Amino acid sequence: MYQIDLNSDIGESFGAYRIGNDEEILRYVTSANVACGLHAGDPAVMDRVVALAGERGVALGAHPGYPDLQGFGRRRMALSPDEVRQYVTYQLGALEAFARSHGVPLRHVKPHGALSNLCQHDRETARAVCLAVRAFGPSLLVFACAGSALGEEAEAMGLAVAWEIYADRAYMDDLSLVPRSRSDAMITGEDEAAARCIRMVKEGLVTTVTGRDVPIRGDTLCVHGDGPKALAFAARIREEFARAGVAVRSVRG
Amino acid sequence: MYQIDLNSDIGESFGAYRIGNDEEILRYVTSANVACGLHAGDPAVMDRVVALAGERGVALGAHPGYPDLQGFGRRRMALSPDEVRQYVTYQLGALEAFARSHGVPLRHVKPHGALSNLCQHDRETARAVCLAVRAFGPSLLVFACAGSALGEEAEAMGLAVAWEIYADRAYMDDLSLVPRSRSDAMITGEDEAAARCIRMVKEGLVTTVTGRDVPIRGDTLCVHGDGPKALAFAARIREEFARAGVAVRSVRG
Amino acid sequence: MYQIDLNSDIGESFGAYRIGNDEEILRYVTSANVACGLHAGDPAVMDRVVALAGERGVALGAHPGYPDLQGFGRRRMALSPDEVRQYVTYQLGALEAFARSHGVPLRHVKPHGALSNLCQHDRETARAVCLAVRAFGPSLLVFACAGSALGEEAEAMGLAVAWEIYADRAYMDDLSLVPRSRSDAMITGEDEAAARCIRMVKEGLVTTVTGRDVPIRGDTLCVHGDGPKALAFAARIREEFARAGVAVRSVRG
Amino acid sequence: MYQIDLNSDIGESFGAYRIGNDEEILRYVTSANVACGLHAGDPAVMDRVVALAGERGVALGAHPGYPDLQGFGRRRMALSPDEVRQYVTYQLGALEAFARSHGVPLRHVKPHGALSNLCQHDRETARAVCLAVRAFGPSLLVFACAGSALGEEAEAMGLAVAWEIYADRAYMDDLSLVPRSRSDAMITGEDEAAARCIRMVKEGLVTTVTGRDVPIRGDTLCVHGDGPKALAFAARIREEFARAGVAVRSVRG
Repeated sequence: MYQIDLNSDIGESFGAYRIGNDEEILRYVTSANVACGLHAGDPAVMDRVVALAGERGVALGAHPGYPDLQGFGRRRMALSPDEVRQYVTYQLGALEAFARSHGVPLRHVKPHGALSNLCQHDRETARAVCLAVRAFGPSLLVFACAGSALGEEAEAMGLAVAWEIYADRAYMDDLSLVPRSRSDAMITGEDEAAARCIRMVKEGLVTTVTGRDVPIRGDTLCVHGDGPKALAFAARIREEFARAGVAVRSVRG
Repeated sequence: MYQIDLNSDIGESFGAYRIGNDEEILRYVTSANVACGLHAGDPAVMDRVVALAGERGVALGAHPGYPDLQGFGRRRMALSPDEVRQYVTYQLGALEAFARSHGVPLRHVKPHGALSNLCQHDRETARAVCLAVRAFGPSLLVFACAGSALGEEAEAMGLAVAWEIYADRAYMDDLSLVPRSRSDAMITGEDEAAARCIRMVKEGLVTTVTGRDVPIRGDTLCVHGDGPKALAFAARIREEFARAGVAVRSVRG
Repeated sequence: MYQIDLNSDIGESFGAYRIGNDEEILRYVTSANVACGLHAGDPAVMDRVVALAGERGVALGAHPGYPDLQGFGRRRMALSPDEVRQYVTYQLGALEAFARSHGVPLRHVKPHGALSNLCQHDRETARAVCLAVRAFGPSLLVFACAGSALGEEAEAMGLAVAWEIYADRAYMDDLSLVPRSRSDAMITGEDEAAARCIRMVKEGLVTTVTGRDVPIRGDTLCVHGDGPKALAFAARIREEFARAGVAVRSVRG
Repeated sequence: MYQIDLNSDIGESFGAYRIGNDEEILRYVTSANVACGLHAGDPAVMDRVVALAGERGVALGAHPGYPDLQGFGRRRMALSPDEVRQYVTYQLGALEAFARSHGVPLRHVKPHGALSNLCQHDRETARAVCLAVRAFGPSLLVFACAGSALGEEAEAMGLAVAWEIYADRAYMDDLSLVPRSRSDAMITGEDEAAARCIRMVKEGLVTTVTGRDVPIRGDTLCVHGDGPKALAFAARIREEFARAGVAVRSVRG
């Protein structure tokens, strides 16, 4: 009756450089967001992880970001809405080429890093991302943070949205994430993190930093794949969901 | 009864940098080969020229090259066949994203620069390009130089080939181009160039540097778009073809 | 008695891409600001223009910018002061290598594009640029817009400053430039532009957009090198200065 | 009486990407070859490792490579000698800027990857590297593989050379390395590797793959810094040298 998707950012290696453990994290998630070569990833990495996601039956998504490899897409860049639309279009196509070559359908889109952060409140940028998606593939799901402008703009444009929640981050009353600069930004206890996730899914509520219970919708939960601790948490949260009667499957699974 | 396609490389500008006169050359050609962002071009340029090609009814093709913007894709790089396949796949998808967004079909593929030169004789590289095309879009036409390994490998793989000829280059007996380092590499007279083109199309023959007449097949003729002289020649060759009873239209027009 | 330096941004070509007419503009200016490969320029271009500046006796400067070739360094990027210092250091060294190889002294530094704009008011960024200069070469002149934080920070750090003025831009009362988005941003009449320049140098005054006369110091005037009109204005302003008794020579000439 | 320098390639991280353990390997080596931002490294990495090498008293060198981050400088590129000279000059300057900023002298140059391989036999490329060094800093030491064209050309040009030997690689009779594609390319036993190193330094002889003893000169030994095994071997070889009466110190220490 209850269900949740687990998603992770993969394909972030580049040339001789390796980030994350794609092979391992794909054992635990039901959706994979693959970097597209501008902030991370390269054609060889994309080729490999798309094939792997297909073999494992993990739903495939594009994870477009800013054209800034050195900054890993985490540095805000002053791009016009048109530039955002063009960069996202480029990345959607580049990834879809590998999807098509391996016979794996492209299912969703999730902006990365500073672009994603900007999409929380900036309607012009959010709309630019959605325009790229609608023109390229109107049946693609948009992964949008709970409460974000991105999700609202996508729905206003008739795109399907999967609302994304976080296990390890604290929320403000407006559902934006508590900035990492604050000491109460992270949910560090794994028990608490797991309990919060289950409550978000089953009750549709989260306790914010002010102590209030606020309604939240969670269709997909973001889990990390770098480091043994992250992998262990991904494995554990799957078990906790199962125990709580929440089916773990991709959004349209 | 006779027909020829005129193709030109466009979309080679990058950011503030401009190469070629895309707006003008699209008035004369029937096929446009668009750079895909690795050796030239960027998402903004691709967005603009794909839309323009669509408005003008010019057949759209991808023009993939080596990942070397500084060398404009003209410097040989030691890539494995797998790397070639992956880079071509990436570029096909990136361009196709703009094609799809603008409702313009992607019709053909033509390798650029040093990658194209290598495809003249290197079967492994030629095969790698064809594998990318077949997996991505088996109905795409491959533009291959007359006599090239690329064309032969494409046909062997069941891909449709458009054989490409040059107006301004002299041929060796094996139909490879006379290297630019030789003094007799170029056909500099416009009258002679035009006459050679018409003969290649109507008689299927070309006189090589040794003075022999050798059979050649020409489905598409490459014309340049940079500089007023190139544009004037493109305009003239259209007229000469018309006068000679050769219809100018895209390969599957 | 009166004197002015004329500076121009050169070396902005990249690979097969050409911007500006370096060969020509070097006939008119006394200082050249050379792009360093991150927002424009490449090692081959730097090698060539540094040699040329040396032959012509034009004072050589570095023109560092953001690491964003596609945006030509004109798009604001959220860099930390440390990153700014590191990028500027890198570029100073890269250019100085060619200066040293050709036996041409490196004399000044002038930030480019969005980095320069930020240095008008942002003290942290201005200081980061100055820290890079002081650690790398404390005898380098800093070219700073009249009224900018960059110039003030440089002087506070003990660096020598050449205050830069513009012929073709209107000034606000605080000596910041009128934004290009406003219709009164540009001084379009060449007569007026020339007269304003001479007045700034001889009287130390400029009439701002509000009609007030405001004190301004101009050690160096920025002239453009792209297009025949820009070159003609560079030639003309030299003559006008001569006629007005203002010597045109490099700042420490 | 006997002495050897230990060198390692460091500063190969890039942005969020990490390669090697610079902090650790700097405890064992006496010379550090720092990547300069074209095949690996970036200004932030360079800033950090140059400072660290200075604190530890490790001799600082530049490690220039091909402009191919995605290929980590390991893919041969068809560059002209002029391009090689220009890319090397650029990288020497970029690194020297950090050296100067931290008050650490730049002492040597060692080409990286495919550029280094080409310098084994290709005299034009070797000469281009040496021309860059001579024009930029004629007192810099050139690290050249035993028997390489690079070392010979450097000496012919009057540059000081440190001949480099390998602990883990087998040699052909002409002192070129046995290609990695052969099964006998690597010296896998650590005892054997250490014994060979000591013999090369003390007796000036190495046993090649054909079983012959061939004269070899070793001024500096290349050790790796990635992975716990590499670090352990670096520590061990230091001890073995000490035990054998070979002082470990930088070439001009």
